[in-house]
Amino acid sequence: MNEQERLINDLVIANRILANENVCDAYGHVSIRNPKNPNTFFMARSLAPELVTRDDIVELDLEGNPINEESRHLYLERFIHGSILEARRDVMSVVHAHAEEILPFGIADGTPLRPVIHAGSFIGAHIPVWDIADRFGDTNLLVANVEQGRDLAQTLGENNVALMRGHGFAAAARSLIEVVRMSVYLPRNARALSRALHLGGNIKSLSQGEIDARNRGYKPYSPETWRAWEYWANKCGCGGMLTRPDED
Amino acid sequence: MNEQERLINDLVIANRILANENVCDAYGHVSIRNPKNPNTFFMARSLAPELVTRDDIVELDLEGNPINEESRHLYLERFIHGSILEARRDVMSVVHAHAEEILPFGIADGTPLRPVIHAGSFIGAHIPVWDIADRFGDTNLLVANVEQGRDLAQTLGENNVALMRGHGFAAAARSLIEVVRMSVYLPRNARALSRALHLGGNIKSLSQGEIDARNRGYKPYSPETWRAWEYWANKCGCGGMLTRPDED
Amino acid sequence: MNEQERLINDLVIANRILANENVCDAYGHVSIRNPKNPNTFFMARSLAPELVTRDDIVELDLEGNPINEESRHLYLERFIHGSILEARRDVMSVVHAHAEEILPFGIADGTPLRPVIHAGSFIGAHIPVWDIADRFGDTNLLVANVEQGRDLAQTLGENNVALMRGHGFAAAARSLIEVVRMSVYLPRNARALSRALHLGGNIKSLSQGEIDARNRGYKPYSPETWRAWEYWANKCGCGGMLTRPDED
Amino acid sequence: MNEQERLINDLVIANRILANENVCDAYGHVSIRNPKNPNTFFMARSLAPELVTRDDIVELDLEGNPINEESRHLYLERFIHGSILEARRDVMSVVHAHAEEILPFGIADGTPLRPVIHAGSFIGAHIPVWDIADRFGDTNLLVANVEQGRDLAQTLGENNVALMRGHGFAAAARSLIEVVRMSVYLPRNARALSRALHLGGNIKSLSQGEIDARNRGYKPYSPETWRAWEYWANKCGCGGMLTRPDED
Repeated sequence: MNEQERLINDLVIANRILANENVCDAYGHVSIRNPKNPNTFFMARSLAPELVTRDDIVELDLEGNPINEESRHLYLERFIHGSILEARRDVMSVVHAHAEEILPFGIADGTPLRPVIHAGSFIGAHIPVWDIADRFGDTNLLVANVEQGRDLAQTLGENNVALMRGHGFAAAARSLIEVVRMSVYLPRNARALSRALHLGGNIKSLSQGEIDARNRGYKPYSPETWRAWEYWANKCGCGGMLTRPDED
Repeated sequence: MNEQERLINDLVIANRILANENVCDAYGHVSIRNPKNPNTFFMARSLAPELVTRDDIVELDLEGNPINEESRHLYLERFIHGSILEARRDVMSVVHAHAEEILPFGIADGTPLRPVIHAGSFIGAHIPVWDIADRFGDTNLLVANVEQGRDLAQTLGENNVALMRGHGFAAAARSLIEVVRMSVYLPRNARALSRALHLGGNIKSLSQGEIDARNRGYKPYSPETWRAWEYWANKCGCGGMLTRPDED
Repeated sequence: MNEQERLINDLVIANRILANENVCDAYGHVSIRNPKNPNTFFMARSLAPELVTRDDIVELDLEGNPINEESRHLYLERFIHGSILEARRDVMSVVHAHAEEILPFGIADGTPLRPVIHAGSFIGAHIPVWDIADRFGDTNLLVANVEQGRDLAQTLGENNVALMRGHGFAAAARSLIEVVRMSVYLPRNARALSRALHLGGNIKSLSQGEIDARNRGYKPYSPETWRAWEYWANKCGCGGMLTRPDED
Repeated sequence: MNEQERLINDLVIANRILANENVCDAYGHVSIRNPKNPNTFFMARSLAPELVTRDDIVELDLEGNPINEESRHLYLERFIHGSILEARRDVMSVVHAHAEEILPFGIADGTPLRPVIHAGSFIGAHIPVWDIADRFGDTNLLVANVEQGRDLAQTLGENNVALMRGHGFAAAARSLIEVVRMSVYLPRNARALSRALHLGGNIKSLSQGEIDARNRGYKPYSPETWRAWEYWANKCGCGGMLTRPDED
């Protein structure tokens, strides 16, 4: 397997994990920047993530146009990915999904989402909420063009996650494995915070120093990171597709 | 497959999806109007939706009488379907079910159900609650005759969904695919609203303009709509039964 | 299959359904009175309900002694069943289990459990809470002898369900199918009530007249009752074991 | 199978049960003290518990060093196990995991976790919360060395369970079967307490006398304890691996 084949292979695994871990249902998508050309990225054609195979992966430019001729339908919201990859040169991979547990934090303004469990530290201390209506008024809530994508990317700023009001979230990370892990633990962190509220008293979030300490230790192919990727891949039937680029 | 065979095939898929997505359990049913005769409709005989096959589909008139001789038991509540199809000539398909997450909104009067997530927009801005006791006093809560069905249809009015106090919901739409999608996202929207309440602060629902914008863009066989139908059908083991009428 | 074989067959199905519907886990049990001898009943030897087969069924007298010589371990809490069957000659079948959703109603005294959904009507308007400590002080909370069983039966009285503080519930009904159905919908009714509380406002429970109307219509082998039994049996892999005694 | 083979066999079963019962995901681990050498213990190499087989089990000393030469990665947090086994000579087995339902009790200080259901009695009346920041300041929250392990063990003291703020729990017991059972019912007890709060009124916890009565009756191979182990092992596909040491 050459580098690009491996990348596409991993992107298929990521799609299946996100479906199996209830981050995506029929909707939601994950992308990865082309390591050989920072101005293009790969993602699936319009298809439920659970059904994605290698042949469904297409290459797009940062404005969402397919690099090769393409007759198949593309995700309407591919602009989320292109715009974030355009604005954030440090980001290699983006997820957009509607995981149920995060939706309330984009609807109610009483409790900001913040990391309360160590596995949630990677979402970062500040998670902005983007409301498409603020600039675009009454829409169908979808990020359906470059202008909307760039507006979302601007709200995301230097953070790792933005909530989208009444819709879902966008997460950005330095690697595919990292963005998948962030997307799996984001709803779990949301659930822990929501339930902690219910118990009353003071809520102890992770401190900035703790978030920083965890970030310093992060490596995409550390045994601890790999353990989760390997586990999730096996759970969704993709154990046989695993490759580990740092161990060739 | 001719048109009617395809319709019955799709109705079987709809039954299985509603069971697999926890909209129905042993109870609940889905119907579709006969496209060649607006005064009849198709639904299963009395059987749990997960077990429905083509041979279980029967044709009924709008008062719930079988068109062909039928010795098998019919759903007691087939009048829900007949009465809504009678009152609403724009409606092609009806679901009645007891999905758990919507039940609280028919029991407590403190928080009206309303769309808060984009996938829930199709339930519409207003969701009336029908209480069978208002007109019929102490009953077994089932819609067991034409008079009760028509009373429910009157409460539904021009809306897409009515809650039934202590019982469940009825949803009506322009196509089978649409009513299934609405029935799957109705409980998820209910859950998002319920959890958002818990977080405190203001709750931002979808505006009427957003609901309208989404309705304008809706097409039953758009890639986005099809994506969900294809995904849910595959999840419940009906992937091999899929046909796409607009692509013949 | 003769009557007793059919009865034991149905008892195995009931065990498997209760496990598969999350009413029981490793613990919990279901019994049925011997139709030929009202002073004995059948239940499994000490075994998780999901693993019960025909050979695991034993016959006990109302004080919990095995009718035939038995070297295998018996459920410690078989006295729940014997004592209820002793006190209530109208009851044919008993379930004891620890379904999670009902536990809070036996721990907190702020909200009495009551039927709020039509499928929950069979639990009855009044559900007493039995606290073993009231009469027996500090115990291991298990109903481990006839005296404790009779005390529980006395609290149950003429009701269909009693909660057991910090422990679980006991349900009693006129048939095996009925007690299984009651045990499946009991936790769902509890969940609906708990979530309705969260929405605020007035909670509308089923009226006594509605409960009575539903009871009047109940028949253990009606198409509606059978539909659930057939569905649950198929879901837990026991579809092939189904027999329908009223259709011989 | 000799004693050590049986012990390793049981440790594999324990790993699989903890994964299947949602106590562990990719993370979390279980250990058992070497019965022939109280200064060493067995646990898996760094691997998701669901994927653990006999060959993945390694022997470590109480400071977390492998007894035999080992090139494979070890769990970063093996010090939790070593330090508790060092401080508590009565303890034979330790679990550390992040089960979701217990997390809120380590984040919010409004409601202490305590046993409210009989199956939760073994967690004990007092469950201290250990905050790694109290002594070590801003860390990545992992127990990554002997000093941190010993600090946790000191907070655990003579209790059975300690919560770890923003992270998870550590449970200690006299046998592997007991620690697994405690770890499965710990989150369920947490959920019951959390939901009971929601119902309002007084919450009735287990009394110290009840906890003591249950402890007095506990035997690791009683029919009641075995029933759960047998059930959980079967559910996770390890039924064929079961051995019962007391019945040779």
